[in-house]
Amino acid sequence: MSFAVHYRTHTCGELRQEHCGQQVRLAGWVNRRRDHGGLIFLDLRDRYGITQVVCDPSRSEEAHRVASELRAEYVIEVTGTVAPRLPGTENPHLETGAIEVVATAIRVLNPSRVPPFSIADESQVEETLRLKYRYLDLRRSRMRRNMILRHRLIKAMRDYLDERGFLEIETPILIKSTPEGARDYLVPSRLYPGHFYALPQSPQQLKQLLMVAGLDRYFQIARCFRDEDQRSDRQPEFTQLDIEMAFVDENDVMNLIEGLLIFVVEQVTQKRIKQKPFPRLSYEEALERYGTDRPDLRFELPLVTISDLAAGNFAVFQQALTSGGAVKGLRVPGAAGYSRREVEELTEFARSLGAKGLVSLAISPTGELKSALTKFLPAEQLQAIVSRMQAGPGDLLLFVADRVEVCNEVLSRLRLRLAERLRLIDPQELAFCWVVDFPLLSYNEEERRYEAEHNPFSGMREEDVPLLETEPLKVRSRQYDIICNGSEIGGGSVRINVASLLHKVFSLMNYSDEQIRDRFGHMLEAFEYGAPPHGGIALGLDRLVMILAGEQTIREVIAFPKTQSAQDLLLNAPSPVDEQQLRELHLQVRAVEEIPQPPVHS
Amino acid sequence: MSFAVHYRTHTCGELRQEHCGQQVRLAGWVNRRRDHGGLIFLDLRDRYGITQVVCDPSRSEEAHRVASELRAEYVIEVTGTVAPRLPGTENPHLETGAIEVVATAIRVLNPSRVPPFSIADESQVEETLRLKYRYLDLRRSRMRRNMILRHRLIKAMRDYLDERGFLEIETPILIKSTPEGARDYLVPSRLYPGHFYALPQSPQQLKQLLMVAGLDRYFQIARCFRDEDQRSDRQPEFTQLDIEMAFVDENDVMNLIEGLLIFVVEQVTQKRIKQKPFPRLSYEEALERYGTDRPDLRFELPLVTISDLAAGNFAVFQQALTSGGAVKGLRVPGAAGYSRREVEELTEFARSLGAKGLVSLAISPTGELKSALTKFLPAEQLQAIVSRMQAGPGDLLLFVADRVEVCNEVLSRLRLRLAERLRLIDPQELAFCWVVDFPLLSYNEEERRYEAEHNPFSGMREEDVPLLETEPLKVRSRQYDIICNGSEIGGGSVRINVASLLHKVFSLMNYSDEQIRDRFGHMLEAFEYGAPPHGGIALGLDRLVMILAGEQTIREVIAFPKTQSAQDLLLNAPSPVDEQQLRELHLQVRAVEEIPQPPVHS
Repeated sequence: MSFAVHYRTHTCGELRQEHCGQQVRLAGWVNRRRDHGGLIFLDLRDRYGITQVVCDPSRSEEAHRVASELRAEYVIEVTGTVAPRLPGTENPHLETGAIEVVATAIRVLNPSRVPPFSIADESQVEETLRLKYRYLDLRRSRMRRNMILRHRLIKAMRDYLDERGFLEIETPILIKSTPEGARDYLVPSRLYPGHFYALPQSPQQLKQLLMVAGLDRYFQIARCFRDEDQRSDRQPEFTQLDIEMAFVDENDVMNLIEGLLIFVVEQVTQKRIKQKPFPRLSYEEALERYGTDRPDLRFELPLVTISDLAAGNFAVFQQALTSGGAVKGLRVPGAAGYSRREVEELTEFARSLGAKGLVSLAISPTGELKSALTKFLPAEQLQAIVSRMQAGPGDLLLFVADRVEVCNEVLSRLRLRLAERLRLIDPQELAFCWVVDFPLLSYNEEERRYEAEHNPFSGMREEDVPLLETEPLKVRSRQYDIICNGSEIGGGSVRINVASLLHKVFSLMNYSDEQIRDRFGHMLEAFEYGAPPHGGIALGLDRLVMILAGEQTIREVIAFPKTQSAQDLLLNAPSPVDEQQLRELHLQVRAVEEIPQPPVHS
Repeated sequence: MSFAVHYRTHTCGELRQEHCGQQVRLAGWVNRRRDHGGLIFLDLRDRYGITQVVCDPSRSEEAHRVASELRAEYVIEVTGTVAPRLPGTENPHLETGAIEVVATAIRVLNPSRVPPFSIADESQVEETLRLKYRYLDLRRSRMRRNMILRHRLIKAMRDYLDERGFLEIETPILIKSTPEGARDYLVPSRLYPGHFYALPQSPQQLKQLLMVAGLDRYFQIARCFRDEDQRSDRQPEFTQLDIEMAFVDENDVMNLIEGLLIFVVEQVTQKRIKQKPFPRLSYEEALERYGTDRPDLRFELPLVTISDLAAGNFAVFQQALTSGGAVKGLRVPGAAGYSRREVEELTEFARSLGAKGLVSLAISPTGELKSALTKFLPAEQLQAIVSRMQAGPGDLLLFVADRVEVCNEVLSRLRLRLAERLRLIDPQELAFCWVVDFPLLSYNEEERRYEAEHNPFSGMREEDVPLLETEPLKVRSRQYDIICNGSEIGGGSVRINVASLLHKVFSLMNYSDEQIRDRFGHMLEAFEYGAPPHGGIALGLDRLVMILAGEQTIREVIAFPKTQSAQDLLLNAPSPVDEQQLRELHLQVRAVEEIPQPPVHS
């Protein structure tokens, strides 16, 4: 990097032993100041690092005087000479730790009030305070690291895709509302009263139209918007790597993304990928073995179905089986010695997830079975169960008997909890996998209509097309989801490119012909003009960066995130607007009572 | 590039002499079909090129039969053998023109209705039709070229900035409305009735906050939004390269951008840059010499002020001068022979721009002056004027006498028109220049307040700060605009980073203290916590790509643009929404009469 000489000759992360003796100028923030033995030591900080500055009155009385008035977060410019630190005072934790700059002049570029939290120490700060003063929060090394990681990750993705002939094409943010899936954010039109644009939930339709346009390989780092209730770490706006390719099948897309993820992980992180190529599981396998379609494969701990071995006098098992449910179990290696209280805690957790309880079976180090089951099931039946579970002395077995969905939900969550407890998770490891063979449709009992499992544009296996007429729920889609460490980080499909088939899917979703024409007519029409086979995927970048940064929420990897209640605490948005602005948009706010008002952040 | 073998082994732009004899598979669109001598010739097209396919019934009766039913824009897959074309039938205009593929099998992947306009020929098509069927328009080579150029330009910018330590940081699209400058697009909040987000007109405040955050060097390819009346080739949403740097002065930013522009132009175009380093003109020089702050420097044709030589008996001149105006002229080289009608046409053009007329003076090849002026001004005065204008035999001089603003407006437009007429413009040439030393403020007579010339955050020369109190209009800003071929393609400034100074500027703009706190309080507060000196710039990418592509409107370089009346004709947006959606947003549409409704595009 080359910098102008005006404010600085070097950054605060740049000076080394070899610069000793040089005259330099640095600019940055006062990270800490220490007065010691008549000298003043400043840690000067910028994005690139920290450099120690020494103010010795015998070298410059004026610099020492200015330094004596500095406080944390003042912005200063320091001129001085690079010198080696005294032996024994080097700081091996600092890249510049071998040297210090002996100040000959210090200029205050801007003072600072006492910040509401310390930048220098990495202490925990309440999140609302961090968000209101995000510009201070971003000065901290954690957030700076995250922003740099995010930049490097996305840059690496672009390089990878550009090299493979993908064109980044910008699609509009002001598009048409098509109520399906999540709620749209709307933008009133000033020119056409009562008309609205919508912000895209994804560029799905437009990227497919780019394939119809013959542009062959498209990508975009795309901003997307969903007006959802912000449970579970979502943001009103989020970023996805959006990809679409013509003349491809599932393998083409999956292979591309697999190569991309391996490339970027190796390029920008120190993490290890557990298994290459990524394992591919069918939706059914994933549910059977891990109880979820987002399995965390950093550890094994499989769920095991023992329904066929569970019949008999044990009422809990028997009831589940006769009402069409299942019995599934989990082996907890080496946990036979868990105390009654520990097992009870796990049982409480299972109950909180909807289980009626947990049935436990401990195998003592000597091979003795300890369980309520021993009173009800004969020894050979218990032995068959133990054997199916591949259990041995010292193991604890936990069972849930219920509807299979409940078994899966409870045991999959229990599996994660036990993996943490057993320290089976290596924080440096990334376990990617693909899940495929999803059903195309599910049935919404309440609204009495079919719903697209992924999105209505997803294609289906050719041999399953006739089932659309007879047993729609049995149709398998051409969808693929990519999972990392138990989080879904993306998904896509090979699409329908035949207008009549797309129309059929919309009909199953109970759209009238008029609604289909109004909302999706442009897609159906486009497909009449030579739509090539095509497929694509979208990766959720916020979540991927979060995982790679080792963070727990996506807010930690977004420069200016909103709160869980969709507020920007820094800018104070949303906010009321002038009546004049509303008039121009031909709108008025409805009279409402008992409206929740956002807290004011002054 | 490697492609899956499923649909194709090569692209339609890839096969050469060296592939002859190979079995290949191609996929693409039927660009043209010709039946000739019992054979069928297909031009198969994809993004990468066109390959000729020959269907010879003696090689494959089935392929010939399928081919006989193909029409333009069918999507097909062709299997065949690469063969050299017969001598004399090679096509040097086609990269694949040395070969053809002899089809052994053809599969129709998707048929096409007859498209509303031809893709293969590049004929003019009405723009509304092109926009409604944008996915067909984008198949044409012109639009494909523009999309590829845009991708490559932006990729090159990112590479350049990444190498120089810039971080691309995404800023939010849902922000706070701050009515200043253009009209905001608003987004109603569902959670907070009567509250709205706004879409950013630019990330100005957020990028400055990133500098306060110490992130040092920021850029973003940023989507921006302005709800303006769409005169003069604007779009509701547009894209800018947004940059901000800490610890810099004007030269740092200008040098960076100059290097960037030279790099990307050389990387992605065949254009020549007329002058490096880019000339820098002051705002006053630009107005004086070219009559505009966006001078087109591909040609010279300077305006010349002759006010001091124009006094005397010529009433037109005298009136302008006594009422405080000016007399400025333009030398049209070699135009002394223009007919009376030609001069009259130029005069009409001048009148349409607000001039009262044009005064002409022709110098015949023998040096004789032909002008109404000769009756009123003495010969030596005329000679002084001719000499000031650096005119000689054969030249035509044109003068405007009026308020200086009118002189500049008229003569600058006349200058452009004459440059075209005299063929002084080389379409392969790019003339960049900087304009600097703008006034900080202008005075809005109507609203009786000062307005920021650039934006209220622009800094001012240190020595001019005291003038804020006394003569605000004399304060020179630290703004710089970058011009290419007479279009402003970007602008920026070194910013104010002192809260009190920013407050002062807002006060001059007639904001009350309460308004300042409400709208800009977060900026003023941020500047209290150690805001470094910083500056930046934004380049309008749509316009830059347009110039580099040789297009006349930015709609030609945007994949899915809106019309001049802000409609998306493909998606049919904006559009009415469900009453339910409005209820959720606590809004109702005002009753209105005589509302202009957008035309329906079915």
